[in-house]
Amino acid sequence: MSLERFFNPKSVAIVGASRQPGKVGYEILTNIVDAGYKGGIFPVNPKTDKIGRLKCYRDLASIGEIPELVIVVIPAGFVPEVMNQCAKIGVKAVVIITAGFKEVSEQGRQLEQKVAQIAKQAGIRVIGPNCLGVVATTNKLNASFGGELPKEGSIGYLSQSGALLAAILDMANANGIGFSKLVSIGNKADVDELDVIESLGRDTDTKVIAGYLESISNGGDFVRQAERISQTKPIILMKSGSTGAGAKAASSHTGSLTGSETAYECVFGRAGIIRCNSIKAQFDFAQALANQPLPKGPAVAVITNAGGPGIMAADAIEQQGLVFAKLADETISKLTAKLPSAANVQNPIDVLGDALADRYEFALDVVLDDPNVDTVLVLLTPQAMTASAATAEAIVKVTSQKTKKPVLACFLGAGKVQDGINILQKGIIPQYDSPESAVNTIKAITDYVRWRNRPKRIIKLFAVNRRKVQNVIERHLRTQSHQIGEAESKEILEAYGFVTPKGSIATTAEQAASIAEQLGYPVVLKIWSPDILHKSDVGGVKLGIRTAQEVKDAFDLMMYRIPTKIPNADILGVLVQQMCQKGKEVILGMHRDPHFGPLMMFGMGGTMVEVLKDVSFYLAPITSDEAKQMLVSTKTYKMLQGVRGEEGVDIDAISEGLQRLSQLVTEFPQIQEMDINPFVVGPEGTTPIAVDARISVQQT
Amino acid sequence: MSLERFFNPKSVAIVGASRQPGKVGYEILTNIVDAGYKGGIFPVNPKTDKIGRLKCYRDLASIGEIPELVIVVIPAGFVPEVMNQCAKIGVKAVVIITAGFKEVSEQGRQLEQKVAQIAKQAGIRVIGPNCLGVVATTNKLNASFGGELPKEGSIGYLSQSGALLAAILDMANANGIGFSKLVSIGNKADVDELDVIESLGRDTDTKVIAGYLESISNGGDFVRQAERISQTKPIILMKSGSTGAGAKAASSHTGSLTGSETAYECVFGRAGIIRCNSIKAQFDFAQALANQPLPKGPAVAVITNAGGPGIMAADAIEQQGLVFAKLADETISKLTAKLPSAANVQNPIDVLGDALADRYEFALDVVLDDPNVDTVLVLLTPQAMTASAATAEAIVKVTSQKTKKPVLACFLGAGKVQDGINILQKGIIPQYDSPESAVNTIKAITDYVRWRNRPKRIIKLFAVNRRKVQNVIERHLRTQSHQIGEAESKEILEAYGFVTPKGSIATTAEQAASIAEQLGYPVVLKIWSPDILHKSDVGGVKLGIRTAQEVKDAFDLMMYRIPTKIPNADILGVLVQQMCQKGKEVILGMHRDPHFGPLMMFGMGGTMVEVLKDVSFYLAPITSDEAKQMLVSTKTYKMLQGVRGEEGVDIDAISEGLQRLSQLVTEFPQIQEMDINPFVVGPEGTTPIAVDARISVQQT
Repeated sequence: MSLERFFNPKSVAIVGASRQPGKVGYEILTNIVDAGYKGGIFPVNPKTDKIGRLKCYRDLASIGEIPELVIVVIPAGFVPEVMNQCAKIGVKAVVIITAGFKEVSEQGRQLEQKVAQIAKQAGIRVIGPNCLGVVATTNKLNASFGGELPKEGSIGYLSQSGALLAAILDMANANGIGFSKLVSIGNKADVDELDVIESLGRDTDTKVIAGYLESISNGGDFVRQAERISQTKPIILMKSGSTGAGAKAASSHTGSLTGSETAYECVFGRAGIIRCNSIKAQFDFAQALANQPLPKGPAVAVITNAGGPGIMAADAIEQQGLVFAKLADETISKLTAKLPSAANVQNPIDVLGDALADRYEFALDVVLDDPNVDTVLVLLTPQAMTASAATAEAIVKVTSQKTKKPVLACFLGAGKVQDGINILQKGIIPQYDSPESAVNTIKAITDYVRWRNRPKRIIKLFAVNRRKVQNVIERHLRTQSHQIGEAESKEILEAYGFVTPKGSIATTAEQAASIAEQLGYPVVLKIWSPDILHKSDVGGVKLGIRTAQEVKDAFDLMMYRIPTKIPNADILGVLVQQMCQKGKEVILGMHRDPHFGPLMMFGMGGTMVEVLKDVSFYLAPITSDEAKQMLVSTKTYKMLQGVRGEEGVDIDAISEGLQRLSQLVTEFPQIQEMDINPFVVGPEGTTPIAVDARISVQQT
Repeated sequence: MSLERFFNPKSVAIVGASRQPGKVGYEILTNIVDAGYKGGIFPVNPKTDKIGRLKCYRDLASIGEIPELVIVVIPAGFVPEVMNQCAKIGVKAVVIITAGFKEVSEQGRQLEQKVAQIAKQAGIRVIGPNCLGVVATTNKLNASFGGELPKEGSIGYLSQSGALLAAILDMANANGIGFSKLVSIGNKADVDELDVIESLGRDTDTKVIAGYLESISNGGDFVRQAERISQTKPIILMKSGSTGAGAKAASSHTGSLTGSETAYECVFGRAGIIRCNSIKAQFDFAQALANQPLPKGPAVAVITNAGGPGIMAADAIEQQGLVFAKLADETISKLTAKLPSAANVQNPIDVLGDALADRYEFALDVVLDDPNVDTVLVLLTPQAMTASAATAEAIVKVTSQKTKKPVLACFLGAGKVQDGINILQKGIIPQYDSPESAVNTIKAITDYVRWRNRPKRIIKLFAVNRRKVQNVIERHLRTQSHQIGEAESKEILEAYGFVTPKGSIATTAEQAASIAEQLGYPVVLKIWSPDILHKSDVGGVKLGIRTAQEVKDAFDLMMYRIPTKIPNADILGVLVQQMCQKGKEVILGMHRDPHFGPLMMFGMGGTMVEVLKDVSFYLAPITSDEAKQMLVSTKTYKMLQGVRGEEGVDIDAISEGLQRLSQLVTEFPQIQEMDINPFVVGPEGTTPIAVDARISVQQT
């Protein structure tokens, strides 16, 4: 849907307009009038005939025409009635500023539901309630009580916190930052973050979408649409309420469900959303993305008039995993020919403390031509000779001639460099308050570019036995048993092409020994009980057994000891299993997020996984590239490649395992959680073995 | 030594004073005069009689009295002559502003050495060369060309980068931040960072020491003195040139050696120095430390008038590992009784969007009394009703009455909250531009407090056989063999109380088998050659051998294969060794930093250590607490405690091993690097085994 009617209405009615300064109904009306809105403005308030020079109407019907946008600022209890009036006269867009709904009480939640229902039946789109309003700078519409109309610009902003939006507007106005649209989404009774993002995605005035969110309403759609929009227009989000403490505060505040941190990391990663955790970082990123071209790669060159800040920038570049550009020989020759001999002609290029604008201009011009440089960061400190304004002009001039690479500036200081900073801002060169902030921005943008250039996503489909898995799962759900036991877990794994170790269940020590003899040594014994999930915790696993006598001993010890530890466990016997001697143990897993669906996990296997937490996550279904990326992003990966003379393992086989698991959990939404642990993988060309698995299912 | 003469001289001579605006000699003279310095001011320049209203002297001698401080701004080549004049007339303090010394060329380095020599012989203390000068606000001395005299304040600042200091001064002046002293230390020909830090440590005008460093001149002294000073006065340092890229830039720029990142982390950790990596963070920290009391613990309460920023603060508190304070029942009752019913009376306390100053005042007053709260963070967003100035006044009032706990503020926005921010700054309530910045500050201060309260450092001394180690090391150094072989490494370990595995060297397969029979199976075979350091890389280690036949096979395979891999290796035989079956493998290590001495290392053992990098470092000698802390700060620690039914290992035994190693490397500075890997440690009460060791030595 389009929010065009909210951003560019022919007329606006303000229900609850007031002549009393300080009241929200006054502030909003004043803001609309003061911003220079050109459409019809209709204050509605039965208690007065006129507000300022505007005629005031007793209700919506008496206006005599249908206002395209209605702003509601009357107390919560009266809102349903106004919605009914809107429905009656045919209003299609309503912004409900009023608070006192879902965010305060159960009663408020019901009231909000009622409002939403009326809107739905009448085909009215609603922004809010409990919001700050809507701003569209190009149309000079300031239907908000967030402050005066900001400068026109290319950042579109949405916020789930009205108060934060007010602070952002205040900061932006003070720093001359411009916006295209601003939307306070409040309780999201109808229009939610995705509606706004989609609308800003289509909006030609908006180059960058930025916002603050506490929750995401529709996980699946959000991922798909955000991924599509990010491909051409960057989305920069602050998402709070992510950690335990934060999430607790979120639920007590907005009553909306918040997803787990991992899920959001996965979603943002998949959809190419640039995440940041402060307003400052968000504007740092947005200004560069809105005003500068995207870099081709990660190589950064630094031009400075002082060593210290140059070193700080170099440190930050290294710490962020960017590339400290190695200048081409030709660049170095050119710099050497014209700069003073004491200048440093290697990166960071030091044009020296007495540099005027000409040296900066020359160096920037030369460095922008260097094929080894993707982004240029220009640092300036206010020294005795420094010409901050002229230098800023020179930077703007060169950058406007050579527009292929991004140029960022960091004029350090305040009063003495303010003239220069003003010129940079007018010349749309983003200016940063420290080398670190500038480098963090370059990092965020470089990651975004890498995401944009990612290979096309192709999900491989393996030939599997779906029916078999369906049967197992349905049988479990019928009997309300949500944990699938080891034997049937293996059936499921085998149906999806995993190889599992051979073995059988023994009920006597002698039987165990005879199974072991048939399998060949070494074998492993595992207690066999539907009631024992973590077998090793109770001494229910014995590895590396090499003789029949050892088998019998281990069998009897388990049978003797375990019932004393878990008296009520129903012990069906002991599994005697072939032991995988060679290879490395990894874990392949899945956790189904209630909002965003299956999150795939990869990590080092065995008991270590819980200690080292060296794991990676990705949203299913995954491609072969993404599976590989999951491996690479762990430290375990290096170990899998082989260290210190050890042979590496078959990386592609793990990647295939992840893709098969991804297919399984995508095709069976009943699977809530699943671990294949250990998944034992050997040298290239060998078949990995899914040794053990835990699967839990639930009715969907 | 004291730098009193630099900060509070009775008279100042400026050699190279100039009447030409723009020249450094003019700027400095003007700055001294304009700041209102009360002592004698003597411009020295043979080319003129008068500068402004001041008499100008042809040389130092013709002044007729001995200036207490001489500022030198003439070209580098003339500086030695001026130093000689200073020596002759008895000047004791000189600031050399002039650049063109060590930082530009070998010739410059020699010139600098000459200057230092003259100074040393005459007992003159020198700041610089290549620096910005010295500022002492209380004495109205601005002997610098960094800009106008800043406000008086309690932050003492030192910088190795003059340009950065200029930027810092400019920023501080624009934001009303005050200083006690500022020193630009330049090339540190004489006075270095430690001299300044010690001097600021004694300075009663200075409450917080802050600075920017690229290198540290005297590692050992620095650690000792900084640790002593930090105990009563916080030191906040930016240290750059730490990473590879940064360090490269540093060496190409200042010609000074920079230490490795790890060493600095250790030094700062040991000495309680608060590290930060941006100017902004430094002032964020300094303002709180200079103006607010130290918190007793990590519990933070948040008061806000909007949910969003409250959640952001809660997230940051959780992410930083601080404690989100759980309010006492009494506090909740009090808040419930007076705040509106829609307010959130749990942490974060939401006084609601329509809160005026009275609600903030009440909530802050109540929360400061809560015994569960150590620090209070007050957030404010500019909403329709918000009274920013009155709220700031209320915060200042309550905080000045209840002075035991730190209060930080974060008024979000700009124009609309500026009045409030000004009042906070006057009332010395630190104000932050985002909840994150405020929480980062609380984190830094809380860590500092924890360091201040650390237990007394007592180094345990074990009874050891020093003589034996001395003999081994001396023998190696005599023969220029810097790597100590396995056998003698074990002698060293045993001399310091480590237990090593039994074993002997075999030169034939039969001999190997017979040694194995005597030791008992399983055994391990290791190739025995002074030329092979990483045995497993060449297939020179075979573990878990259980029969005589396997011993012979392994022996012959090594003898056949290894010479083809390393043709020139001198193979002396194969070590047949008892194998430690039980227990976990860890690594105890030491790397000697050229500046700061031995850095102890602990981590997971075996080949995994290089992959997982789960290691911790600490500066030797270490206490038992510090050894324990090294363990706790790794993820490996949890594994050592025992996971999933596994028994834990003897933690104290590892701690003792680290302390013994610490004693060894402290007593033998010839040991350059050392690994005990694996150090196999079993359940509590068992003796750990130092299975293998690498030791390298060098003449000191």
